[in-house]
Amino acid sequence: MEIPYKIYLSESEMPRYWYNLRADMQKKPAPLLNPATHQPMTAAELSGVFCDELVRQELDNDTREYPIPEEILSFYRMYRPSPLVRAYCLEEKLKTPAKIYYKFEGNNTSGSHKLNSAVAQAYYAKQQGLKGVTTETGAGQWGTALSMACSYFGLDCKVYMVKVSYEQKPFRREVMKVYGASVTPSPSDTTAVGRKILQEHPGTGGSLGCAISEAVEVAVSNPGYRYVLGSVLNQVLLHQSVIGVEAKIAMDKYGIKPDIIIGCAGGGSNLGGLIAPFMGEKLRGEADYRIVAVEPASCPSLTRGVYAYDFCDTGMVCPLAKMYTLGSDFIPAPNHAGGLRYHGMSPVLSELYDQGMMEAVSVPQTAVFEAAEAFARVEGILPAPESSHAIKVAMDEAIRCRETGEAKTILFGLTGTGYFDLVAYEKFHNGQMDDYIPTDEELARYAAKLPKI
Amino acid sequence: MEIPYKIYLSESEMPRYWYNLRADMQKKPAPLLNPATHQPMTAAELSGVFCDELVRQELDNDTREYPIPEEILSFYRMYRPSPLVRAYCLEEKLKTPAKIYYKFEGNNTSGSHKLNSAVAQAYYAKQQGLKGVTTETGAGQWGTALSMACSYFGLDCKVYMVKVSYEQKPFRREVMKVYGASVTPSPSDTTAVGRKILQEHPGTGGSLGCAISEAVEVAVSNPGYRYVLGSVLNQVLLHQSVIGVEAKIAMDKYGIKPDIIIGCAGGGSNLGGLIAPFMGEKLRGEADYRIVAVEPASCPSLTRGVYAYDFCDTGMVCPLAKMYTLGSDFIPAPNHAGGLRYHGMSPVLSELYDQGMMEAVSVPQTAVFEAAEAFARVEGILPAPESSHAIKVAMDEAIRCRETGEAKTILFGLTGTGYFDLVAYEKFHNGQMDDYIPTDEELARYAAKLPKI
Repeated sequence: MEIPYKIYLSESEMPRYWYNLRADMQKKPAPLLNPATHQPMTAAELSGVFCDELVRQELDNDTREYPIPEEILSFYRMYRPSPLVRAYCLEEKLKTPAKIYYKFEGNNTSGSHKLNSAVAQAYYAKQQGLKGVTTETGAGQWGTALSMACSYFGLDCKVYMVKVSYEQKPFRREVMKVYGASVTPSPSDTTAVGRKILQEHPGTGGSLGCAISEAVEVAVSNPGYRYVLGSVLNQVLLHQSVIGVEAKIAMDKYGIKPDIIIGCAGGGSNLGGLIAPFMGEKLRGEADYRIVAVEPASCPSLTRGVYAYDFCDTGMVCPLAKMYTLGSDFIPAPNHAGGLRYHGMSPVLSELYDQGMMEAVSVPQTAVFEAAEAFARVEGILPAPESSHAIKVAMDEAIRCRETGEAKTILFGLTGTGYFDLVAYEKFHNGQMDDYIPTDEELARYAAKLPKI
Repeated sequence: MEIPYKIYLSESEMPRYWYNLRADMQKKPAPLLNPATHQPMTAAELSGVFCDELVRQELDNDTREYPIPEEILSFYRMYRPSPLVRAYCLEEKLKTPAKIYYKFEGNNTSGSHKLNSAVAQAYYAKQQGLKGVTTETGAGQWGTALSMACSYFGLDCKVYMVKVSYEQKPFRREVMKVYGASVTPSPSDTTAVGRKILQEHPGTGGSLGCAISEAVEVAVSNPGYRYVLGSVLNQVLLHQSVIGVEAKIAMDKYGIKPDIIIGCAGGGSNLGGLIAPFMGEKLRGEADYRIVAVEPASCPSLTRGVYAYDFCDTGMVCPLAKMYTLGSDFIPAPNHAGGLRYHGMSPVLSELYDQGMMEAVSVPQTAVFEAAEAFARVEGILPAPESSHAIKVAMDEAIRCRETGEAKTILFGLTGTGYFDLVAYEKFHNGQMDDYIPTDEELARYAAKLPKI
């Protein structure tokens, strides 16, 4: 069977279930803890924050497959299947014997894979009869995706956007408005936690952790609202498994077996989704793959963080999660251009990394933009800075193959497009980009403030 | 056979030829004339401006099918086939019995259908051993597309960008730089015609017609360079026929026959491409379709222009074309937000319109943005303002079906995405958009200046 340049599954081949990686983990990820009692959060406690079905998914470490509701499948058909593309032109440019494939998730207006979970979370909120949801957004991909999903299901959507992004990315803000969302720069005076942060840090540009605190406060204090999150959580990785399951169906169909699977990692939503079914095989001893998480050198939670319980937000109103973390008030240096700026990492991925089931590497941003531009010129797609972390390492691996002569098969996740990141590209062109990396002393200072559990 | 939500042709089903609509026209479009002698332009005369193979295509009114060279097919496979999508959600929102399909051309970094011709023109320039090409761009879609194509084939690319767009759309500029193009705001002091225009109109924001004059001057005065154009020309419509041929193959496969085919029309590249094979059937008497061109009320060349010979550019250095035109120095009012601002219309489409083979309608921009936002909220894609002209009229036709109870099949062209048009969306949200339409007196004043031929 001849392998097409781009593999699109037919509608009948598209997955009808999400795969819950936790079901195949012998040692499960550590549970979320109540910040007051340090006891595992119960479903009842979580249901004030998240809607009921999502709480069930969050706590369910056993069910292997979740059928995707028909309404969500309908929405998925608006922009899925995403193509699995053979990067022939990149291979040729690198003169590598490696075969490079990428799963491209940018073919939708949100511009990224975030929509896969946004539509699921909006659907369950609607099912529960809620009025709306609240969330935070940094670079803006998640907020855009959630706005689209809420518009589709007729839900109100309140987005707290990290203030520095709100100001630097007016177009992101405007897209969310096209979809009818309200967008508030964070920290704001609309919440108690926002006012407190503003008082302590006047003039602050905000952070993801701080925007999370505000969004959670608004959700729990407004009847008919719940909070939703675009990464880190188990439920999000569950929904994002659609990326990996589609990729695996497509590869199996043509008898392609990846040797190396590479994904960028901020909170872990894309990486966790892309690798899910492959990691499942690895956990069950059915196959082996090298799995590589790529993070920015300016926010290196896996490669330089601590595996410990920590707060998910700056205001410390959220449950504690056991994860690789840099400390809940760590904020990457202002020169850091893209997303991937969360202080922690998905508990599922943290546990797998701790078990030695995957590798992690960090890369400086100038090298990332060089890779992004090289990729754009031959493959045509303008990649998001986040996605370009994976491009960089995929190119490095392909170059290594050129040197060793090995024809390895590389699969990487191209999570989204860079249309809203041209200020960063402009900085790169003008030589205004630098590669500040936090010192050991800085990281130790943040780590010292981790809660003692 | 069940019809998928989105129809993607397989690689083996993708068209391997462009369809030359002129071959099926009994009365051919009028030839380009030499502005000095008023005689038809010869291949020799045109070859100083365009590369040789493109001159051949420009003048060839007889060959029905042009095989697409393998290198162009390879490039097409990077982003084609484009999906033919059934707009179920839009139908539901409009409560219409009509079946609405759209051919979506925005799934590539240039964000529009322009890439279909850009890659062809860059390929032939490379084949001829040229160093590079020059062009103009207004809204920026064509310049982006050409930059991508030139980057792929290793050609130099000099873009003259209408000054007002250069300043208002810095991101468009930056994307072109990602692909290695040089971008000059027009009018500029790099050309004689630019200096002349600057002297006569100091402080002007420029126009497409003026940027064309500069780009042509640079092409003819630099050895190894030729000029390329993204619309209007016969060759461009030939390349863009890939849109319509793909759409027709997909529709034929599932036994779908459109009653109405709708496309936005500026210079005519998208409309001419989309309708090509359908219009061919109509010309040969094999089928009948209503074919509707949609233009902005602020630049109404078909609906309010004159069918006459006119200059293609402001500097009057280009050949004369017989087309529906508003006059070569007509510039839409500054409030006009999107593209579709060229003073004339493709000679092929002009001739077909004159023969009564298609209809034309003009729409005001506020109504266009209302349609765009309604479409985005249910169909997920953020449409370009240009494309939204077709959306508006497709919605109007679908609403008419609701009223008459007819279950017509509507096909429209969704030419691109609006990621770089968020300043316009912001104006729309803030109520700063108005619908200025030129008066009859204004149009008569421009028409009076048409060359006497």
